[in-house]
Amino acid sequence: MFISVPATSANLGPGFDTLGVALDLRNEVSIKRSRFFSISIKGEGSKSFRLKGNNIFISIFNEHYRNLVDKKEKFRFTFYNKIPLSRGLGSSSAVIVSAIAAAYAMAGIPLSSQRLLSLALSYEPHPDNITPAVMGGFNAAVVENSRVYSIKKEMPQNLKAVIVIPNRPISTSHSRTKLPRKLSLSDAVFNISHSSLLTAAIFNEEWDLLRIASKDKLHQDIRMRAMPELFEVQKLALQNGALMSTLSGSGSTFFNMVYAEDAKPLAYKLQNRFSKFAIKILDFDNQGIIIEE
Amino acid sequence: MFISVPATSANLGPGFDTLGVALDLRNEVSIKRSRFFSISIKGEGSKSFRLKGNNIFISIFNEHYRNLVDKKEKFRFTFYNKIPLSRGLGSSSAVIVSAIAAAYAMAGIPLSSQRLLSLALSYEPHPDNITPAVMGGFNAAVVENSRVYSIKKEMPQNLKAVIVIPNRPISTSHSRTKLPRKLSLSDAVFNISHSSLLTAAIFNEEWDLLRIASKDKLHQDIRMRAMPELFEVQKLALQNGALMSTLSGSGSTFFNMVYAEDAKPLAYKLQNRFSKFAIKILDFDNQGIIIEE
Repeated sequence: MFISVPATSANLGPGFDTLGVALDLRNEVSIKRSRFFSISIKGEGSKSFRLKGNNIFISIFNEHYRNLVDKKEKFRFTFYNKIPLSRGLGSSSAVIVSAIAAAYAMAGIPLSSQRLLSLALSYEPHPDNITPAVMGGFNAAVVENSRVYSIKKEMPQNLKAVIVIPNRPISTSHSRTKLPRKLSLSDAVFNISHSSLLTAAIFNEEWDLLRIASKDKLHQDIRMRAMPELFEVQKLALQNGALMSTLSGSGSTFFNMVYAEDAKPLAYKLQNRFSKFAIKILDFDNQGIIIEE
Repeated sequence: MFISVPATSANLGPGFDTLGVALDLRNEVSIKRSRFFSISIKGEGSKSFRLKGNNIFISIFNEHYRNLVDKKEKFRFTFYNKIPLSRGLGSSSAVIVSAIAAAYAMAGIPLSSQRLLSLALSYEPHPDNITPAVMGGFNAAVVENSRVYSIKKEMPQNLKAVIVIPNRPISTSHSRTKLPRKLSLSDAVFNISHSSLLTAAIFNEEWDLLRIASKDKLHQDIRMRAMPELFEVQKLALQNGALMSTLSGSGSTFFNMVYAEDAKPLAYKLQNRFSKFAIKILDFDNQGIIIEE
C-alpha cells in the first residue's frame, strides 16, 4: 500500500487558521505486511534518531489500525519524505492525514475525505493545513462540532509557487504563544475583509488583486520579527513579480505565488540574495492525498 | 436624467464592513433643468419635513455639480424612494452614490464605477453598502488608500431575499459605538474563517454551506439585544428554509436568503408571527446603479 500527501502553505496572509493551498512537494509512504516490524526513512528526517524511535506516523497508524482490526500484525514502513520539518509547510499535517488514511486502507475499511478530516482534528485542531493536504488545491475551511466545512478551488497550471525555506525554524517561543490574546476591532476587521477578498480573488481568478488582498495585521509581522530577513524576502519577492508573498503557516518558510513565467527570474534573485536559504519552484497540487492499495 | 439605485444588505453575518449584496428595491430620482429649484419626494421619507429642507442628496449633488460646472443652474428633483430609512438597508449609501453619479451625469462628465466608489468613501468610509449599490450582486470589498477593491458575484434567479423590516430602528446607542473596541483572538479568527467560507460558498454556489458560514461573533448578538424579537425572527427563519438569516447592516432589518420556492411559505410564517413588521420578498439585484441620460 502506497500513500502520498502534499505539502501545504496555510494562512496565506490574512486567512489565519482558515486558508491553505497544496503544493506539489510530497511525502510518500509504502506499507507492507511483514514478519518483522521495520522502518526506513529517506529524505527529510532520515538522519533523526528521534523520528525512527518515536515515529508519529507509526503511533497514529497503530492507534487507528488496532481500533479497526482485531489482530496483531507487523508492517514494514518505508518513508520518502520531501516536506521539510518544522518550516511551516504542513509536514505534521501530512503525517497525521496519511497515517490515518493508511490505517483505514490497510484495514480495508472505506474512509471519506470528510471523515478523514474529522479524525485528523484530534491531532491538529486547525483546518488550514489538513484540508488542502486531503483535498488538494486552495481551500477555505471552518471547524464546527469537530467537523471541517470547506470549499476547494483548483489552482491553474499557469501559476507557480516560489518557496523560500530558511536554514532554521522560527523559534517556538515566537509561534502561536506570542500572538496577542486580544486585538483591536479595526485589526480584526482588516483581516476579515482581506481574507474574504483573497478568497473571492482566488475563486474568481483575479490574481492581480492578491497583492492587496493578502495583507495581514494579525500574525505575520510578530512572527517575522524573530527572523528579520523574512521582511527582505517579502519585499524582494513583491518587487520581482510575486502576486502575493506570505509567511507559510507559522514560518519560517515564505510562500510566493507567481505567474509561471516569473518563477525562474524570482527564484534566481532570491537565491542570489539569500544564499543559505533553499529556494524551490513548485506547481500547485490539485489532487491532495493519493492512496494506492 | 434618471437614476435608480438598489437597496443593499451589508455584513451578511461575519463579513463586517466587508460583504454586501444588492436587492431589487430601488430609489429612483429624476432631475430636470428648470427655472426654479423644486423638490418632490414620493414614497419613503415623503412625510419628513427635514428631508425636504435639508436633503442630503441635494447637498451632495450640489457640492459635486458646482465643482464640475462653472455656472449656477436650477433643477427640479423628483424622488421615488422605496428603500426604508434607518433600517439597515443602505438608504444613505444609495443617496450618496446616486447624488454623486447624478452630478457627473448632469455635468456630462464620464465617471467610472471605481471613481464613483472612491468619491463615495468621503461620505461613507465603509465599502459594504456602497459597493453593491454601485455594482449590483454580491461583493467582497476592502478599502486601501481611499480606493475600494472589490470582487462581484452575480446572484442567481433561483434565490430570493425575504426581508423583515421592524416598525422601528435599533436605537443608535446600540449601533457601532456599542461594539467592543477589543476582541479575543478566537472570536476574530471565527469571523475571519466564517466570512472567508461564506465568500467561497457564494462564489462556488454551495448554498447549503451558508447556514454554517453565516455565523458571526462580532456584532450581531450585541445589536440584536436592543430588539430581542430579532432572535425569534432568526430562529423562525432558519427553521423554515432560510439558507442564512443575518442582521442587515446594523439593523433593524433582518435579511434571509432562501430558495425561490421557500420564499412565500417563509414570508407567510414571519408575517403571521410578527404582524407589526413589514415582510418583503425581493429578487437580488445584479445591475447596481442605473443612469439614463
